[in-house]
Amino acid sequence: MHPLANSQDASLRARAASVVPGGMWGDQNAANLPQGYPQFFSRGDGCRVWDVDGNEYIDLMCSWGPVLLGHNHHEVEEAARRQNARGECLNGPTEAMVELAETMVGMIPHADWVQFSKNGSDATTTCITIARAGTGRRKVLVAAGSYHGAMPWCSPSVAGVTTEDRAHILTFEYNDVASLERAADMARGDLAAIIVAAFRHDFARDQEMPTPEFAASARAICDAAGAALIVDDVRAGFRLHPGGSWELVGVQPDLSAWSKAIANGYTLAAVTGSDRFRAAATQVFSTGSFWCSGTAMAAAVATLGIVQRDDVVGHLYRMGTLLREGMSDLSRRHGVAIRQTGPVQMPMILFEGDTDFSRANAFCAATLQAGAYFHPKHNMFLSMAHRPYDIARALVAADHGFRAAAAVRPSAP
Amino acid sequence: MHPLANSQDASLRARAASVVPGGMWGDQNAANLPQGYPQFFSRGDGCRVWDVDGNEYIDLMCSWGPVLLGHNHHEVEEAARRQNARGECLNGPTEAMVELAETMVGMIPHADWVQFSKNGSDATTTCITIARAGTGRRKVLVAAGSYHGAMPWCSPSVAGVTTEDRAHILTFEYNDVASLERAADMARGDLAAIIVAAFRHDFARDQEMPTPEFAASARAICDAAGAALIVDDVRAGFRLHPGGSWELVGVQPDLSAWSKAIANGYTLAAVTGSDRFRAAATQVFSTGSFWCSGTAMAAAVATLGIVQRDDVVGHLYRMGTLLREGMSDLSRRHGVAIRQTGPVQMPMILFEGDTDFSRANAFCAATLQAGAYFHPKHNMFLSMAHRPYDIARALVAADHGFRAAAAVRPSAP
Repeated sequence: MHPLANSQDASLRARAASVVPGGMWGDQNAANLPQGYPQFFSRGDGCRVWDVDGNEYIDLMCSWGPVLLGHNHHEVEEAARRQNARGECLNGPTEAMVELAETMVGMIPHADWVQFSKNGSDATTTCITIARAGTGRRKVLVAAGSYHGAMPWCSPSVAGVTTEDRAHILTFEYNDVASLERAADMARGDLAAIIVAAFRHDFARDQEMPTPEFAASARAICDAAGAALIVDDVRAGFRLHPGGSWELVGVQPDLSAWSKAIANGYTLAAVTGSDRFRAAATQVFSTGSFWCSGTAMAAAVATLGIVQRDDVVGHLYRMGTLLREGMSDLSRRHGVAIRQTGPVQMPMILFEGDTDFSRANAFCAATLQAGAYFHPKHNMFLSMAHRPYDIARALVAADHGFRAAAAVRPSAP
Repeated sequence: MHPLANSQDASLRARAASVVPGGMWGDQNAANLPQGYPQFFSRGDGCRVWDVDGNEYIDLMCSWGPVLLGHNHHEVEEAARRQNARGECLNGPTEAMVELAETMVGMIPHADWVQFSKNGSDATTTCITIARAGTGRRKVLVAAGSYHGAMPWCSPSVAGVTTEDRAHILTFEYNDVASLERAADMARGDLAAIIVAAFRHDFARDQEMPTPEFAASARAICDAAGAALIVDDVRAGFRLHPGGSWELVGVQPDLSAWSKAIANGYTLAAVTGSDRFRAAATQVFSTGSFWCSGTAMAAAVATLGIVQRDDVVGHLYRMGTLLREGMSDLSRRHGVAIRQTGPVQMPMILFEGDTDFSRANAFCAATLQAGAYFHPKHNMFLSMAHRPYDIARALVAADHGFRAAAAVRPSAP
């Protein structure tokens, strides 16, 4: 294989380096990826993306989650275009806001109401603020290492964060009931909420589904304390279950945060809540200049309609299973051990004993060159646009990846 | 005049009341407006908007600021459509991010770099976090009553907000140099930043441009303390001066927050900064699922190109002057005293002695019925799509409004 063409990407990176700090912000900075990854993209179609040099990839990141049905999905785009032609941003909401809220209340069992915003961080922060307003208390329990957004109370970096920003945050270990109980005890009469990711999908580590005991215990602690149970479904929402990811463990949250896949790539987030927190939601001042823009809401109505009509979750499950089985076969053939964890719809693939990620990086660099976009450390995402042939193409690329990984000595003994 | 048709709006409000807390959130809740205002909108074109019952209005709110060039501006929509067809949200940014950052660095004197996000609140919060990271200090000075967003550190409501969220916020009075100096003294060696609105545009009170002494003093205090001067240009940006609103007072900020008008209605926000804070900007973890989406950035490139090419600020100034002079004439004719304050491009019209806003409400309700959408308490916005004939139509409607206002006894002696 030849290195991918990258002259356009290199030229844009050089320009970006002077006008954007670090050339790019956050986790989408390609400096965090193995050599050879493009920073800049040109277009997407279905489950394929093209970088600015015209290299085409079977995409396993789905734009870090938002692309649920595939790029340029005709029904979503038609709904978006129709609304957009009438107006993107008006003096108030359009009918699409009501349709979307009704759709979500209809499909999400705990949801009696919905409030919209634009970022996952807006939704998680609003959930916590509503929980505090509704309970009159302050302490919030968060799993250590869980990502709930980039606001000072939860950002993975503490640069520019003050101690007070996290004064009322207490941590526990995901899926560890005893640690959750200890944290709740520390909060005593001041427990406002437990916020918990739909499943454990921390950066660069094995994924874990919530155990039924853990989920039941979180619910029981909140019930006993009169606190709010918040499920952060920003990343997993609509890929595991149309009614919310904790339907799988049979536990209803009081509040949930949604974003990413909700509008198949259009900018939108939402908070759903039960009637118990409706009054608190009206007291909290939540607003943003674009929060009632119609296009994203029309796209979301179309997206969630398809989620209910076409068994999107089932399709993702079938494609994820094909990928997981294929990766497992390749792992054995190449004698390179991997761990595949969490739900198949959101694949996490880590190499055994690969503490410095050198095997993962070699795998991903070679796989990319062979035309498939994997991520070495972050969970990936499947879409409705992935068909068996696309998974096959990703696996053919992964065969090159495993060969490259096998040539790297594992970093741990 | 007859009351406006409102059956569609009433029906949507009834549906929304059950699935959205309070029927609508924040300042866009029509419950905060005089009787007769629509909650739901159907479409916009140029400077006109239509509610869901088909009533047409000359619009003086411009969607609370975002609509700078008018709805459905052909150049902006063409740029947005072209990018959108290639992909709304990809695995990383498109070339449009670099073009937009270069455009802003080229037009905004203090800007050496740009970082994008989605809400004005994202931009102001990021500015403060960068200032804290860059200075290693914590205290932030904020003018009492200034609106800087809906995050816990700055929200106008304290429901769900903890004392610690504002532990390092100190307040001063806008345009009061002595109060600013006192607040800076209280911060002592811990001053990270002064954040100040482009001009004083507080809710329901007279607007004030920053005095040159106040602006110079804010700059001097930051220089002496090694703190960051942050101008919040979210609301005023691109309407007062293409290079940033404090160009009018000849003072350069270190950081500025932008949103609203930047992409003529598409969802986008930005932070600009000087090289002094570039390293801090790379340390702060800032990210969001849709922050590098291409469509809004392509729309912003087109919008800011037009701002530079077509003297948008000058046009807004001329239309604003026509409106202000017309309102002043009508006020005298009807013997109803008003105060018109702040920049003409962002009209604020308050009735003399109208402490309970009964005259403003009567004015606005009648003006609305006559086909112009004014706001009784919030500053308004003009756009490039407002032509002299549109201002004339708004004034004809305002003539009805003044008649209604004259019939209301002023609430204050």
